Amino acid sequence: MTDILFERIALIGIGLIGSSIARDVKELGLAHEVVISTRSAETLKRAEELELGTAYTTSAADAVKNADLVIISVPVGASGSVAEHIAPSLKPGAIVTDVGSTKASVIAQMAPHIPQNVHFIPGHPLAGTEKSGPDAGFTGLFRDRWCIFTPLPGTNAEALAQLRSFWERLGSRIDEMDAEHHDKVLAIVSHLPHIIAYNIVGTADDLGTVTESEVIKYSASGFRDFTRLAASDPTMWRDVCLHNKDAILEMLARFSEDLAYLQRAIRWGEGDKLFELFSRTRDIRRSIVQAGQDVDAANFGRPTPDAKP
Amino acid sequence: MTDILFERIALIGIGLIGSSIARDVKELGLAHEVVISTRSAETLKRAEELELGTAYTTSAADAVKNADLVIISVPVGASGSVAEHIAPSLKPGAIVTDVGSTKASVIAQMAPHIPQNVHFIPGHPLAGTEKSGPDAGFTGLFRDRWCIFTPLPGTNAEALAQLRSFWERLGSRIDEMDAEHHDKVLAIVSHLPHIIAYNIVGTADDLGTVTESEVIKYSASGFRDFTRLAASDPTMWRDVCLHNKDAILEMLARFSEDLAYLQRAIRWGEGDKLFELFSRTRDIRRSIVQAGQDVDAANFGRPTPDAKP
Repeated sequence: MTDILFERIALIGIGLIGSSIARDVKELGLAHEVVISTRSAETLKRAEELELGTAYTTSAADAVKNADLVIISVPVGASGSVAEHIAPSLKPGAIVTDVGSTKASVIAQMAPHIPQNVHFIPGHPLAGTEKSGPDAGFTGLFRDRWCIFTPLPGTNAEALAQLRSFWERLGSRIDEMDAEHHDKVLAIVSHLPHIIAYNIVGTADDLGTVTESEVIKYSASGFRDFTRLAASDPTMWRDVCLHNKDAILEMLARFSEDLAYLQRAIRWGEGDKLFELFSRTRDIRRSIVQAGQDVDAANFGRPTPDAKP
Repeated sequence: MTDILFERIALIGIGLIGSSIARDVKELGLAHEVVISTRSAETLKRAEELELGTAYTTSAADAVKNADLVIISVPVGASGSVAEHIAPSLKPGAIVTDVGSTKASVIAQMAPHIPQNVHFIPGHPLAGTEKSGPDAGFTGLFRDRWCIFTPLPGTNAEALAQLRSFWERLGSRIDEMDAEHHDKVLAIVSHLPHIIAYNIVGTADDLGTVTESEVIKYSASGFRDFTRLAASDPTMWRDVCLHNKDAILEMLARFSEDLAYLQRAIRWGEGDKLFELFSRTRDIRRSIVQAGQDVDAANFGRPTPDAKP
């Protein structure tokens, strides 16, 4: 029995996500050919040095020729132009998928360009780190992580099953939902946390009375937990904000409303309200650890010299 | 040469911080006697089971008798009543310190009660985890962490040097500043991050359209980074909010102002403003890692199955 799932895979975009897929495909032997494409000649050269694929080109149109699976891993704002560019070169019967963090916008941008005889299945692997670029990828990034498909009505069942097999081989667990629901869920579990993290780090950066060196020196007291998210790829997150605007603005409004309530409780010394909120949130942490979505090691399991837990 | 720094140490409060101090004192042999006191009989029993000290009492007044160093590790809101309670029993020449996260309020609460012949030196070790209680403590918690003293004018230099030696033996680096500055610095590096984390976790908990199980299931996409802080001790944080009110309200106002700017940029699709902020914050993360205040391992160094970085 062969491990080959697709004769030829084209990877458009070779950052953290694209390069992690490439590494897994290579290690697991899931394709005979892996064509890698990115607009930047420099990044492409690096991908070649890392031996991530079997062929390399700056032309996405060339890359997708004869590919059975095309995976687009670019900032969501670029999805439309990539789709337009590759559409005429797509092989009939091919599967085209993406990894974008927003789904309604990606569908609106891409679907109009994809030919009828090509299976377009939008996807979103919930995996990543705060690093970016081809060097940031690693094998196993998707293992035990969720991958959400937001298939359009009438999607070919066989193509869907094939794509599912692919991600399952990478170790992912698959969920399916509609794009609008995906965008709402991600707005709260991912987009709002990133925006808040960026904002608080920005606020700290602006403070005159507290020098920046003090913020850095004492950051272990809480602040540093936000800085990881706030170190994520700026282009990716600019695009997420612009392309999931409605859901994000709704979550921001709720967040600000809740913060106003909390602020008022602090101003008026309402300790019982503070205690109630601060107790409730503890339970959520417990559920997350129980669900295996985080480790319970104190302090994120960061190395504590000679700690004897 | 003996390792003994104090003949008798009294620890008032035996939670995460108090019990970590107890473990270090025992391991390093810094005192002949360590008297442990906490109001809860159950917690005191646990401290005794863990063999954290040499004597145990629910009476803080009894605990401080003949103690050369008294360390008060209670929620900051309880500082005043503890000080009032122990004052008549303090040994002349003793050093009294605390570990509270707010300093101006602790000084205002405690200083009026402390006798003239006792050295009151407010302190704040910047160390801890999201866990609480005597079982959460461990040796080495303070190693390579900052401990900030906010001494009052006219503090006895010898007593200050002795307390400094004590924390240095626990591995801490010592800083000195005035209480008002401390409270401002901590408001941004610690109090605001905790409040924001509590708030975002609360907002997520309230969402009707997204079920709680989805929030938990997909939490690795960003949300979980906040849940650690939001799992911190509710009593401690209620007291911090009530006792550093002015500095916290100022930071909250700045944060909300910045968030309104960011929200407006999202609403009006101003990608350049978003990109500028999202790039600036990346540099701060870099500085924190360079300063040794966090590890650079992607994703907080959480275990990724079979990751080959």
